This record gives sequence, structure tokens and C-alpha cells, in this order.
Amino acid sequence: MSQQPMKLRDQLLLHDHTMEANKRRIDDSDYFRSYSDVSVHELMLNDDRRTRTYQMAIMRGYKYFYGKVVADVGAGTGVLSMFCVHAGAKKVFAIEASEMADQISEITKANDMQDKITVLYGKAEEVELPEKVDVIVSEWMGYFLLYESMLNSVLFVRDKWLKKLCLTKDGVMFPSHASLYTAPLASHEEFKERLDFWDCVGRPYKLNFSPMKSYARKCFTKHIHVTSVDPSTVVSRPAKLCKLDLLQLKASVLDDLQAEFCLKSFGSCEIDSLAFWFDVEFPGNVQLSTSPDCQPSHWQQSVIYLKESLKVEQDTDIKGRISVRPCAQFSRNLDVSLQYGIQDKVYNQRVLMDDLGS
Amino acid sequence: MSQQPMKLRDQLLLHDHTMEANKRRIDDSDYFRSYSDVSVHELMLNDDRRTRTYQMAIMRGYKYFYGKVVADVGAGTGVLSMFCVHAGAKKVFAIEASEMADQISEITKANDMQDKITVLYGKAEEVELPEKVDVIVSEWMGYFLLYESMLNSVLFVRDKWLKKLCLTKDGVMFPSHASLYTAPLASHEEFKERLDFWDCVGRPYKLNFSPMKSYARKCFTKHIHVTSVDPSTVVSRPAKLCKLDLLQLKASVLDDLQAEFCLKSFGSCEIDSLAFWFDVEFPGNVQLSTSPDCQPSHWQQSVIYLKESLKVEQDTDIKGRISVRPCAQFSRNLDVSLQYGIQDKVYNQRVLMDDLGS
Repeated sequence: MSQQPMKLRDQLLLHDHTMEANKRRIDDSDYFRSYSDVSVHELMLNDDRRTRTYQMAIMRGYKYFYGKVVADVGAGTGVLSMFCVHAGAKKVFAIEASEMADQISEITKANDMQDKITVLYGKAEEVELPEKVDVIVSEWMGYFLLYESMLNSVLFVRDKWLKKLCLTKDGVMFPSHASLYTAPLASHEEFKERLDFWDCVGRPYKLNFSPMKSYARKCFTKHIHVTSVDPSTVVSRPAKLCKLDLLQLKASVLDDLQAEFCLKSFGSCEIDSLAFWFDVEFPGNVQLSTSPDCQPSHWQQSVIYLKESLKVEQDTDIKGRISVRPCAQFSRNLDVSLQYGIQDKVYNQRVLMDDLGS
Repeated sequence: MSQQPMKLRDQLLLHDHTMEANKRRIDDSDYFRSYSDVSVHELMLNDDRRTRTYQMAIMRGYKYFYGKVVADVGAGTGVLSMFCVHAGAKKVFAIEASEMADQISEITKANDMQDKITVLYGKAEEVELPEKVDVIVSEWMGYFLLYESMLNSVLFVRDKWLKKLCLTKDGVMFPSHASLYTAPLASHEEFKERLDFWDCVGRPYKLNFSPMKSYARKCFTKHIHVTSVDPSTVVSRPAKLCKLDLLQLKASVLDDLQAEFCLKSFGSCEIDSLAFWFDVEFPGNVQLSTSPDCQPSHWQQSVIYLKESLKVEQDTDIKGRISVRPCAQFSRNLDVSLQYGIQDKVYNQRVLMDDLGS
């Protein structure tokens, strides 16, 4: 008996004890502590597409940074803060709530940027900036765009610290927009293999484990899976679920983000899952997309395995609606309600984006 | 910003809130819930060495099972229970505390063993068996042998339900013995690569992240890493830290398992880590070893990255002692105190076996 270490604390959010209030209090100390470990920063910086696109967006958008004051929300290793200095920023406030804050100081010194970058060790909601800022940069996007709910902290800093120049011209957000997409998949290979596993695994032992197949299917439907989607399995044009304008977005929208969609299938097939991905746009027409058609990133795609698969013909309309909320017990997880169907058949499914989604 | 989902709840054990008592209460509901997900059972059954060795041990040891009553502690998918039926067991009590209990019933029916296997849904410490048993089978071993602390439950069942035939001849434990080993490693490739990463990652961006190197090293030393050890990097014969006789072992020994070791280095090198692995033995001379010299298993090996590396010559004695305890805050994690050194230099290091060890 030995599960993978990272599985051991899984699904905390589901427990039925009456200590939710206590748990909410500890959520964030655990959350920030996990960012104090080095491995998550290896993953981030090793994601070439992510880091290069931010660099390109900031360098191409140097006019937004040159001589300006910037806040970097959730600065991590400070890489974005340093890009801002490269782009001519007068001052960058690197806000970091984990122990990494000390490392940013060391790194900025090693890059001789200690005069330009001021590290603020604390939560975005609690730190005091000595002045208002012209620009906010942040790499806040989680799996399924909103996992980890870090966007709320970015909006908090925006409302408190971003300059409002006049009624029509505000400060600048980097990125400025974020969009979430969905598209249906015909038989996701990974699920198929994992189901077939139960037909085969008992054979060498002359045992039959096939009853596990329906149980496995049920387990799959409960969690959003972070995985790579083969673009050839996507069987409609994607639908854009929402486009968030990060300068205008009200934080309350994130309490329950709702969207409807209609997908028109390319041909006859059986749809067993829906894929989700996002893109963000930066001022100056730079985009970072995590679509299955793009070069891979550490975000991959998010997949919901459907409780009921859908048999479709050419141009069948697959209609649905989705509601994305922070989990009641652990607000950095997501609680997703999905309604979907074809013709008069409608199915409802509740799915969690949590530790088991990998 | 987007860490791997499984990292999000990491290091709960370290938090400094004053709610340890509450946390201990919820530990086990989370623990058993994680075993209700299908993926951990895929991992287990997919570990060919594990499953085949148990099958071989039970079939070769059929004389212990033929016509006997067996308890399978933490039955999972019920695979070991079914092996016992193959070996002629009269009755098997499959004890399972997670939702998998219902699946075992389905699987035993599919294998027409429902008359022989009785599923008991509940914790090993709480279920009531209708009779005492002749044999206990269990696959209780975690990473670093004791991670997850499942052995305590096996010992509880032994003390309460295993027949005591007479003073010298007891019931039978499958496995009957477990041993833990250690050996020093000369420059573990994975750590080396992960440290070198920080020298290289900034170059394309004309940035210097090398201050992260010492921080990364510090992070590495805090957690036991589950990883594959290249046998060619092992630079002494292994030392056996302990051999647990599972028929005699007192549960209190597991509250603080202590051992001393002396390792004699093969040649001149710099030792940066200690590897650990275990084996278990079954009656009838069958062994399951997770040594780096053996075929891989999902347990791999456990590695402690040393705070201070050791420069050794041929036949240098590396002496040390280790103490392994369940974590105070979350008893399924391990809190390891390591003392090690050469000549008169002695170092102390505290290491956790927890979710960050992957």
C-alpha cells in the first residue's frame, strides 16, 4: 500500500466535519507555504512559453513601463519585476506573500536592480505601497484559468493602488484581458486507456476487475483533469465562455462566473468529455494562449469527463451552461456546475477542480 | 502562476496554528477518502513486481492458507484476498475503510468468490470479525517503509484477531518481516540537474537566478524525496537499519524507530545524499525488495539530501543514527532526525516525509 505522496492530503475540501471556518483560516498559510518550496518555481520558469511571452509583452509594451511605477502581484522569483526594469520602469514593487520574498531581494541584487525593485513581503491585500502605480503585472492564471483564485488579489491591488488618471483613461493591466474556452472531445485517449486497464489488469492473475470500470468512470467525472488534449480529438470549433476585462472586472463576478455555450459538432462521433483552456491578452497585441493547437505550456488543458457521453451527427448543437465558483470549504479550489445536452436530453454534473485533478 | 494541483495542499504539517487536535481528527477521513479515488489503485495494480510477488508468496505458501481463515488489512481492490482464495483459504475477511469496500464486493462477485470473501467496511481498529484468523495478509508498506503509518493498523488487527495457537506457535503474518536499509550516494543526478537549472534558466533573459541555488539546496534538505536511484551512484555496501519481526513487533516501537549505522565508502568521492529502501519477507522464503539493484517498483527509493556533503576516501567510515517518528501534527507523515558524519565532524538534520517529497 503506498499512494503517491501528493495524493495523501487530497480532497480535504470534501470532508464533512464542522470546522470549515477554521480551515478557511489556515488555507492561505498552507497556500503560501507551498510557494516557498523551490519546485513550483522550477516549473514556472521552466515553462518557456509562459516566461518568453511575458517578456515579449513587457518589452514590446515598453511605452507602458518606461519611467513608470509598477506593481508585480505574486512576484515569485521576481522575473516579471526584472523584465519591467529591462523595459525602463522607474520603480517596481514586487509583492510576495511566501518566503520567496527574501529570495527576490537576493536575485535583484545579483542583477543590480535593488534600487529599482522594492520587495514587499506580505499578502497583496495587506501590504502598503508607498505610492500608487501606473501598471500592474501579474502571472495569476491557474489551471482552468481560475484555480487558486489569485485573480482576486490582483483586483484588490488594482482597486487600491492602481492610478486612475481620468474617467476614461486608467492605469494599465498586464495582462489586460483573459478568456476561457471550451470544445468537445471525441474519446479522450487517456480516459479510454485508464478504463481499458481494468479489463486487462486481472488477466495475468486469472482475476476479473472489470466491475472497477464503472467505478473508475464515476471517479473521472468528479474532478477536472489537467492533461494534454490531442487537437485531432477536438470535434467542434471552440466556444468562448467569457472574456474578462481586467481593468473593469468586478471581483464579485468571480464569486459565480456563469456562461452559456453552443457547440456545433464537426461530424458523427461520441463525445465523452469537454476540454477547457484560456488565453490572456496584453496591451500591444501580445497573446498567451493555452489552446491545444498552441505549443504546450505547464497549464496544458483542463478536461471534464462527462457523466453521459453524447452521440452526435454532423452539425448537432451541443448546448450547455457552466457556473464556476470558489469552493465553499477551500476557496482556492473550484466548484463547477455543468449543464449540457443535445436536443431535449439535458444532463447536470458537478465537478471539482482540486488536488485530484491530475 | 500555476502550481501543480497536487502541490496546493502541501506542507500542512508545518503550519503553526493552534488547531492540531482538530487536524488530527480530520486526518483519517481525508486519508481514506484519497484511497476511494481510482487512480491510487491503478498505481498499485500496475506495479507488476508488487502484485506478482504477493501472488507468488501466497501461492507458494498455500499450506498457510489452505482451509484457513484470513484477514486482509486494507484490502483495496481485494486482489490479495482473491489470491488467498486461489491458495485455498476457507474464509477471507477483507477489511477496507474507504469507499472501495463496495467495489471489493462487486469484484468478488465477478470472480465468484462472494462465499469465501466477506468485506468489512470500516477501520481496521473498529471492525468486528466474526471469528479469529489464522493468517493476516496486508500490503501496508509506504514510501520509506513507514510513510502513511498503516503498519499500526496491521499490528492492531494482529493483537486483536490473530489466533494464538500456543506459546511458541502463533498465527502467520504475510509478510512476516520488514527491513529498512541505507547507503550513501555520490552526487545524485536529479539534485545536480535541479541545482544547475538555476545557473542556466536566466541566460535567455539576460538575468541571473544563481542566488536561488543555495535556497534550492535548503529546500531539498527539508523533505525526503521519492525517486529512482542509479545503482552506480551507491558508494558503499548498504547498512541494515532494522529488521522488524511483524509477529513480535510492539506497536510502541513505531513511535520512535531508532537505528545506528556505519557505512564504509568504496573510494574517493563526495557524498551528497543517503538513499533508503526496504524489503519484506514472506514465510516460504519469498522476498520483495525495493533496492536500487532490483527491478523498479512504484516505491522507488527514498533519498535524503544532506545539509553538508561528505568528502570521503577509500574505506572512510560514515557513521550515523536515525530516528523515525510519526509527525506530531499529521501522524501519517514521518518526522526523521538524522545524525551523520565522518571522523569528528557530526551533522544533525531534520527531514520530513510528506507531500513535498516527490
